[in-house]
Amino acid sequence: MDKYTSKLSLWKWPLLRECFAEFLGTFLLVTFGDGSVAQAMLSRGTAGDQNTIAWSFGVGITTGVLVSGGVSGGHINPAVSLAMVCLGRLPLKKFPVYALAQYLGGFLASVFIYLVYTDALDKFDGGNRETEGPLATAGIWATYPQPYVSIGNGFGDQVFATALLVICVLAITDKYNSQPSTGLAPFLVGFVVVGIAMAFGLNAAFAINPARDLAPRIFTACAGWGSKPFSFRSHKWFWVPVVGPHLGALTGAAVYELCVGIHWPDRYTVEDRYAPATSSDAGSGNRDMKMESVVHNADAPVRI
Amino acid sequence: MDKYTSKLSLWKWPLLRECFAEFLGTFLLVTFGDGSVAQAMLSRGTAGDQNTIAWSFGVGITTGVLVSGGVSGGHINPAVSLAMVCLGRLPLKKFPVYALAQYLGGFLASVFIYLVYTDALDKFDGGNRETEGPLATAGIWATYPQPYVSIGNGFGDQVFATALLVICVLAITDKYNSQPSTGLAPFLVGFVVVGIAMAFGLNAAFAINPARDLAPRIFTACAGWGSKPFSFRSHKWFWVPVVGPHLGALTGAAVYELCVGIHWPDRYTVEDRYAPATSSDAGSGNRDMKMESVVHNADAPVRI
Amino acid sequence: MDKYTSKLSLWKWPLLRECFAEFLGTFLLVTFGDGSVAQAMLSRGTAGDQNTIAWSFGVGITTGVLVSGGVSGGHINPAVSLAMVCLGRLPLKKFPVYALAQYLGGFLASVFIYLVYTDALDKFDGGNRETEGPLATAGIWATYPQPYVSIGNGFGDQVFATALLVICVLAITDKYNSQPSTGLAPFLVGFVVVGIAMAFGLNAAFAINPARDLAPRIFTACAGWGSKPFSFRSHKWFWVPVVGPHLGALTGAAVYELCVGIHWPDRYTVEDRYAPATSSDAGSGNRDMKMESVVHNADAPVRI
Amino acid sequence: MDKYTSKLSLWKWPLLRECFAEFLGTFLLVTFGDGSVAQAMLSRGTAGDQNTIAWSFGVGITTGVLVSGGVSGGHINPAVSLAMVCLGRLPLKKFPVYALAQYLGGFLASVFIYLVYTDALDKFDGGNRETEGPLATAGIWATYPQPYVSIGNGFGDQVFATALLVICVLAITDKYNSQPSTGLAPFLVGFVVVGIAMAFGLNAAFAINPARDLAPRIFTACAGWGSKPFSFRSHKWFWVPVVGPHLGALTGAAVYELCVGIHWPDRYTVEDRYAPATSSDAGSGNRDMKMESVVHNADAPVRI
Repeated sequence: MDKYTSKLSLWKWPLLRECFAEFLGTFLLVTFGDGSVAQAMLSRGTAGDQNTIAWSFGVGITTGVLVSGGVSGGHINPAVSLAMVCLGRLPLKKFPVYALAQYLGGFLASVFIYLVYTDALDKFDGGNRETEGPLATAGIWATYPQPYVSIGNGFGDQVFATALLVICVLAITDKYNSQPSTGLAPFLVGFVVVGIAMAFGLNAAFAINPARDLAPRIFTACAGWGSKPFSFRSHKWFWVPVVGPHLGALTGAAVYELCVGIHWPDRYTVEDRYAPATSSDAGSGNRDMKMESVVHNADAPVRI
Repeated sequence: MDKYTSKLSLWKWPLLRECFAEFLGTFLLVTFGDGSVAQAMLSRGTAGDQNTIAWSFGVGITTGVLVSGGVSGGHINPAVSLAMVCLGRLPLKKFPVYALAQYLGGFLASVFIYLVYTDALDKFDGGNRETEGPLATAGIWATYPQPYVSIGNGFGDQVFATALLVICVLAITDKYNSQPSTGLAPFLVGFVVVGIAMAFGLNAAFAINPARDLAPRIFTACAGWGSKPFSFRSHKWFWVPVVGPHLGALTGAAVYELCVGIHWPDRYTVEDRYAPATSSDAGSGNRDMKMESVVHNADAPVRI
Repeated sequence: MDKYTSKLSLWKWPLLRECFAEFLGTFLLVTFGDGSVAQAMLSRGTAGDQNTIAWSFGVGITTGVLVSGGVSGGHINPAVSLAMVCLGRLPLKKFPVYALAQYLGGFLASVFIYLVYTDALDKFDGGNRETEGPLATAGIWATYPQPYVSIGNGFGDQVFATALLVICVLAITDKYNSQPSTGLAPFLVGFVVVGIAMAFGLNAAFAINPARDLAPRIFTACAGWGSKPFSFRSHKWFWVPVVGPHLGALTGAAVYELCVGIHWPDRYTVEDRYAPATSSDAGSGNRDMKMESVVHNADAPVRI
Repeated sequence: MDKYTSKLSLWKWPLLRECFAEFLGTFLLVTFGDGSVAQAMLSRGTAGDQNTIAWSFGVGITTGVLVSGGVSGGHINPAVSLAMVCLGRLPLKKFPVYALAQYLGGFLASVFIYLVYTDALDKFDGGNRETEGPLATAGIWATYPQPYVSIGNGFGDQVFATALLVICVLAITDKYNSQPSTGLAPFLVGFVVVGIAMAFGLNAAFAINPARDLAPRIFTACAGWGSKPFSFRSHKWFWVPVVGPHLGALTGAAVYELCVGIHWPDRYTVEDRYAPATSSDAGSGNRDMKMESVVHNADAPVRI
């Protein structure tokens, strides 16, 4: 125990552990999500549709949070991590490390999707990797808007959908609100994304996560699709699902705090309301301690 | 703490907090719900069908209750609030304030659905906002019955489906019945609405909530659809999904109480059976207190 | 309290309460289930398919158990009640009363489905209520097998699917097995029925519940379909979804007990393993007491 | 109690009990899974699609774990059992017995699927049991790859998808991670398989379980499909969904341990992190004891 309470170990090893968890969590998210797009697209809709894509992204989020929730808080999304920084639930200096781990997870998942569906890809497009047109497959990895959606509308779409995500994440994890049990939260966050896919997936395929969009986009640019994933729409699109979600996450955090958070009695600080975002922030480097503190804290609400 | 126990603060601030929560909750409900209708309709069924619409409404209800459940009880529906008034779970004087917050939430959600899908709308109907016909889009916001459904049948449909909703909500929140954990309840209420969408969505698109129907209808009347949303069927339809749900909610509350509630032992009063509908009604203005009282009340059942 | 411990009240009022709960629970099951079949059939598949039917039956089971679980154990199926009698979880003398309440719930639900969809029915079949052929609508209420399914195969199908249901119900409620929380159990039972609808719904529409099949069949015979619902296949079919589920429920109970139940240590009696099927059987006529006894019984496993 | 603590009884009877549980659990998994494939295939897609197949496999996993989780840990998959052996969660000597029980469960389920769908099979293929071609039905039982998928790609597909499964299973059951309640875990594991079916079902129908693939394959070889289920692709395919999942399960266990497991504080041993895989391994032969030990162990985290 002692070795985990020293400043050094708190910084050195827990952060490594948190990075691995965010890496694996984002890997699972992109694997399940993009895998379902691959299955639907490469089967020309015979083995997948909007329902399978939505639910599979939900499974990806749920498993991503399950695998990392007890270690790093289960952000698996740089935009969510940014919102947590602004809420004081993640130290700013950890943000770039988290984001890097998330992008790497998304990139590795892209590689595996390519490997697992390599024969199906070749069968589908005859080896010509296209970004646009009837045989386009780049949409398996990164997101591209409908032809009729303007950059402005697409940007608003990303901001709005990510704000919805963050509002719901904060509601789920605010321990003074509806109080889902710790183990139910990953499913509920996944369920939220199912809804986003079904209600806001039409315009631009609900990226709402830069690690799920930019990392796979870089992969496609490296893996045979050339510069098209970035030059699409005269280089005016690729930044939208990167900047939009960050702005949306901040908006969502502000909305939740304005509508719910600031109205709690004064003594409910953000630190009090949310469990520590990462296990090491709880001061002992392990979740077990965090749980004990909840149990032994007479002021804490009973979570059931 | 003390400042929250004073009569003034109990009335002034908790009600404001509850209104914001109901506002945000109804906003989420209508956003996810109407968003999924927009996605299915504007993609001409290629990116949505009855399954996505049903599940997305379920997500909307679940997130709406998650975001407001710990603050205001998570009604997000004036008809449900009315039933709570009749059961003594909401003070009558709060009802108009709750309802107003809910209608405003529904209206704001309508605005955002319009903004997010503005390019898709223009592509779909060429800028001609129609309420009837093959290019009609008003159904994204408010509900319209099938041509063969009479006003009487449509009214009965609304009464019946809302009664089902309220019966299930009371069963889920009655702490002497099956006792889902606090955090599971929002999902279960959402799941109920999934079923209503799948079983009673054909006749008139399962409004079952005036804030989800009237507020978006007013929006469409303001935003380019003209008087048609109200003059549809010679002004005989628009009131049905407003009056019907209120009547249905009362019916549902009566049915649950007659079949289950009144048969509990006498000492189980309504106050005893249900958690306070709003946190301020618990006497301390915060949920944490409410939880403590449950824990410290030796007569209360153990909720697991 | 005292008045509920007297023999008289234990018999008189709790049984009435249990009957109302089973009545309302079965009403909800048949309402959601048959409602979804009506929506899919009357819209000619445009507003429903096998997915909506399966999930809506799942919602029906979940809500049916939620509304009655804390009162009567949530059987909402005479075949399940019979299995509970054989396991000693329901007194034999209560069985006919439970079954009657369940059949009445199924019948009343049939009436409401007819009323809610009366205009759609007339539009679909022009007022000619048919049991067979392209405009047949009797299948909204009762189940009819595929033309190629023999009586023997259909009977086996009903026995098998009901056995699956009961095996799963016993696993969910056996407190020494996987221990879902009380509030999760209704959802899990509903989820099982979703699977049965998706895997064993082809042959004969997964009745697996006499109250969901015979009561609606009687309704159709009274409401304009004439003798056909019973004379279908020379009067050789209608008894199959009545007798088959009873036999299947007994088979399922035997299989679970043989594979799991009898292998628990001897001191785990059936009474010990399962919570009392009905609240009155717990000796105090209310669930709160049952819960207390669990909590205060040091030998009982911790349910989380 | 004493008789269960003796070495003999601990070995003799608990193992029998665990085998029966694994047998019944695998039976349920294959029954729901293959039943849904039969329904979709034999109805030519009118009563099933990729959505119903995915969800029904999810129900099969959920019910399989529910029925066996409290007895044997709910592996219902020889590859998962192998991973548990490597993690020290299952004694090696139990592995062959578990695997045998799982294969027998899969085989018996295959028999029942055949019996339940015998008339539908004859109607579909006229009695000619085919493994390839438009009337092929062998795919109801065992898995066959798409024509364009090479053996190497198919093998990688099986390794990858099974690794995903095991990563998620370990995350769900690791009590220092996100901590779903015991009763929620079966649903979450089923939900993971829903995602795998939707994202990695295209190449080779997501066997990811030798007991779900080899046992049904043997059945088809015995039941009229001749040698084709094994001679398919010159005897080069049938071993892929047997060997691949074993390798994938080991890979998944290694990945989870490398990314999460080894980073927990040293004092968290594997024995400490996971509940005993089988009830008898907990030292008392019943789950109730296991639970007590959790409760009385002051070092254990609080599971809620």
